Amino acid sequence: MVWTLDQIAKHVQGEVVGDASFKVDSFADLQSATSNQISFLSSSKYKKYLATTQAGAVIIEQQLVAEVLSNAIVVDDSYIAYAKAAMLLNPQEEYSAGVHSSAAVDENSQVHPLAYIGPQAVIESGVKIGAGAVIGPACVVKKNVTIGKNTRLSASITVCEEVQIGNDCLLHPGVVIGADGFGIANDHGKWIKVPQVGSVIIGDNVEIGANTTIDRGAIENTKIGNGVKLDNQIQVAHNVIIGDNTVIAGCVGIAGSTKIGQNCVIGGGVGITGHIEIVDGVMITGNTMVTKSITKAGSYSSGIPAESTKQWHRNVVRYRQMDALADRVKQLEKQLKNS
Amino acid sequence: MVWTLDQIAKHVQGEVVGDASFKVDSFADLQSATSNQISFLSSSKYKKYLATTQAGAVIIEQQLVAEVLSNAIVVDDSYIAYAKAAMLLNPQEEYSAGVHSSAAVDENSQVHPLAYIGPQAVIESGVKIGAGAVIGPACVVKKNVTIGKNTRLSASITVCEEVQIGNDCLLHPGVVIGADGFGIANDHGKWIKVPQVGSVIIGDNVEIGANTTIDRGAIENTKIGNGVKLDNQIQVAHNVIIGDNTVIAGCVGIAGSTKIGQNCVIGGGVGITGHIEIVDGVMITGNTMVTKSITKAGSYSSGIPAESTKQWHRNVVRYRQMDALADRVKQLEKQLKNS
Amino acid sequence: MVWTLDQIAKHVQGEVVGDASFKVDSFADLQSATSNQISFLSSSKYKKYLATTQAGAVIIEQQLVAEVLSNAIVVDDSYIAYAKAAMLLNPQEEYSAGVHSSAAVDENSQVHPLAYIGPQAVIESGVKIGAGAVIGPACVVKKNVTIGKNTRLSASITVCEEVQIGNDCLLHPGVVIGADGFGIANDHGKWIKVPQVGSVIIGDNVEIGANTTIDRGAIENTKIGNGVKLDNQIQVAHNVIIGDNTVIAGCVGIAGSTKIGQNCVIGGGVGITGHIEIVDGVMITGNTMVTKSITKAGSYSSGIPAESTKQWHRNVVRYRQMDALADRVKQLEKQLKNS
Repeated sequence: MVWTLDQIAKHVQGEVVGDASFKVDSFADLQSATSNQISFLSSSKYKKYLATTQAGAVIIEQQLVAEVLSNAIVVDDSYIAYAKAAMLLNPQEEYSAGVHSSAAVDENSQVHPLAYIGPQAVIESGVKIGAGAVIGPACVVKKNVTIGKNTRLSASITVCEEVQIGNDCLLHPGVVIGADGFGIANDHGKWIKVPQVGSVIIGDNVEIGANTTIDRGAIENTKIGNGVKLDNQIQVAHNVIIGDNTVIAGCVGIAGSTKIGQNCVIGGGVGITGHIEIVDGVMITGNTMVTKSITKAGSYSSGIPAESTKQWHRNVVRYRQMDALADRVKQLEKQLKNS
Repeated sequence: MVWTLDQIAKHVQGEVVGDASFKVDSFADLQSATSNQISFLSSSKYKKYLATTQAGAVIIEQQLVAEVLSNAIVVDDSYIAYAKAAMLLNPQEEYSAGVHSSAAVDENSQVHPLAYIGPQAVIESGVKIGAGAVIGPACVVKKNVTIGKNTRLSASITVCEEVQIGNDCLLHPGVVIGADGFGIANDHGKWIKVPQVGSVIIGDNVEIGANTTIDRGAIENTKIGNGVKLDNQIQVAHNVIIGDNTVIAGCVGIAGSTKIGQNCVIGGGVGITGHIEIVDGVMITGNTMVTKSITKAGSYSSGIPAESTKQWHRNVVRYRQMDALADRVKQLEKQLKNS
Repeated sequence: MVWTLDQIAKHVQGEVVGDASFKVDSFADLQSATSNQISFLSSSKYKKYLATTQAGAVIIEQQLVAEVLSNAIVVDDSYIAYAKAAMLLNPQEEYSAGVHSSAAVDENSQVHPLAYIGPQAVIESGVKIGAGAVIGPACVVKKNVTIGKNTRLSASITVCEEVQIGNDCLLHPGVVIGADGFGIANDHGKWIKVPQVGSVIIGDNVEIGANTTIDRGAIENTKIGNGVKLDNQIQVAHNVIIGDNTVIAGCVGIAGSTKIGQNCVIGGGVGITGHIEIVDGVMITGNTMVTKSITKAGSYSSGIPAESTKQWHRNVVRYRQMDALADRVKQLEKQLKNS
């Protein structure tokens, strides 16, 4: 399908500079775009490609439009405009409502007639699935789960008993929602299971990345707020609460009963201990180890970045000698005072 | 279903203070419980809620019973008693024995007549499944696997060829047992595969969290002892041995051929190198990096906790200057000696 | 099946010392091998077992052959020879071509008549699957995916739309290829999705471990080179490029748009930030945190290894005092200069 620059500009609230009737069919990077494609510049790092790009049009901010040799769409924020234009050019796949013949749908479930259930999917009893929802191939939706309108489960996803997922969510393959939290008690040297009878409540407009796991609560529920975006391979333990619009990158682990505020941004590989609270508006950089509550908005970090293995060995030794070094400095101070 | 306090007290070896015939139907936190619910107090942190809780009864230890305004069940260890009472009130789901019509069960497998095979499950040839076992929806059990009595595979689990799983185990969705270990050999610059012909042997009473992976051995077997409890997204490499009753929290990675003792407790996000040995009774706190054998029971840690990003930058710079700093201190010592 | 030492020696380009017609049927460790088994010695650590092993034969290098009491196969590199001999003794499982009756194969797909499609698998429209390919049980292959000759998807794998996988690859259970990259843009406080319209291109001879995820590109493609070997639970974000023959151990996270060279070796648990470049021939040890491009081949590390929790507490305090310590040393230097 093709779009005129005029159509795109209207969609992103921008203005065409050049030929508004010019047609493009897809996005490409400045370096690889051809004349039937549109590109964008959102980082000055790529400015150098403006001179040579073959793109038929470029989405750009006002201060750089003079450097565009082709058509342009001038916008306030080129990255936001790119996102919106890309959604226009690449609409979500459409599914015809209905149930694939190979799906196993329990007769005591309520699948909305405008929902789609893919091949090899399993829908157990008591499940409610809203209008426009898509349950992709090989997904398993266990008893009494509720899935809201237009929510999509891509493929090979497992949603355990009683879990509630809101509207307009998007879950990627391998996601597991509502598995038992890690609840055990040591009964005279032997671990016994603490039944996990809470559930998971997921708001609207939540995206959950591939192979991410969100455990059900022990007694009360685990809760994911509206507009939360989770990347791949994140582990959310039982009774965690994540506030609205918080964004978490891949491979983060959040231990049980921790509460994370709204509008936080958490980098990849971060580890967060249990039973703490992180307030709204906190940013945590990648691979940070969080062991205590964070009570003020702001940016937090830890971790020592890579160096040559040889230097690393030396620094680790020095690190272990810090105590002794501090003692030596103290000794020097005393000597000097006495001298 | 409802239970009298008397019934619950007998189950947890406690004593009712108040009305032994009082009935409750479920557990709730002290803050949210209503009069038909039972709660418990296991941490002094929540003692303040005793005065206002609406719970119909509270499981509590002797020293605090005077502060309970409702009925109470007095026990030696309130957390253990809660776990046991919660099991009474929330028994495991029951499954009628049999094979779902959409399952693909090879005729050369031996599924016990008292086992349950869920929708879309795959049971390959040579598989043996014990009485009372539950193979949930979309699970794949490959050739010659043995699964013990009353073991439950929740959903979307893959068990690879020849793996043996004991009795009374519980595996959560997305678990993969017995995929090939990461065995490669560099043949003049090109990596060739080392066939992984060992298997995985899992004991009785083992719980394995969502999306955890346990690889098969290269030649000999990977082994998980009795009573081991593994949380979500743990990676257990080939030929790892984990001793009885050891507990491992989420996102831990254990490299190949490492042996972990009995009764260890390993926190979330820990990374453990290959070919080392950790003795019985070791505790490792979250996010620790273990690069050498641990030969004495006790608690071990590493990692620098989060600080403000500004302070982190400064400390990383200082860290890299430690070598120089130590030299300067040495120089000072020399000067002072000579002065 | 049994093999003579002569057959094995020919396969690994080695020479038999002893009875070339001696027969063995499998591999075992030196400690556990019986007389119908063959073993190998590749690390001097296990040399001590040569005296007592019951193995019928041992693959060994020239300098140690005198210490073997049984038959031996002398080779240049015993680990490579073991890998090759193990492949001979344990050939890949054979599958009869065809489609299992429970699979859901779209009529508009092209499955080669010599490919195998397992139970409960899903093959969507536009998919092309090459000769000798194996699509295991419960795998989902979404629209327009291409899978090359002799490539094997073990079980429970999801390959998303348009992804291209080369020849002779091996993917383990739970792998997800081509889920959306984590692309979001903050539109006045609300996160909107950036459509991920690139794909994933995987070369030939690639192995991908259980539950590893490789995201599709935002605009351009994510690319995995020929001969790349990925272990379990690795996260490869959108637009990452991994060069030929690079090897990555378990639990590594690689953030978006990062480029990793050829012939790199990356240890377990490493975290690599986005938009950086790592040149060819880099080795990174386990749990290292990589925040900047690495421009020279060599070995890199970071992270502080475990110590007793008590000592750890003390060192963390010292770490936080480094700034002050450096100031004190500076002060001492000044005093001494003035004295």
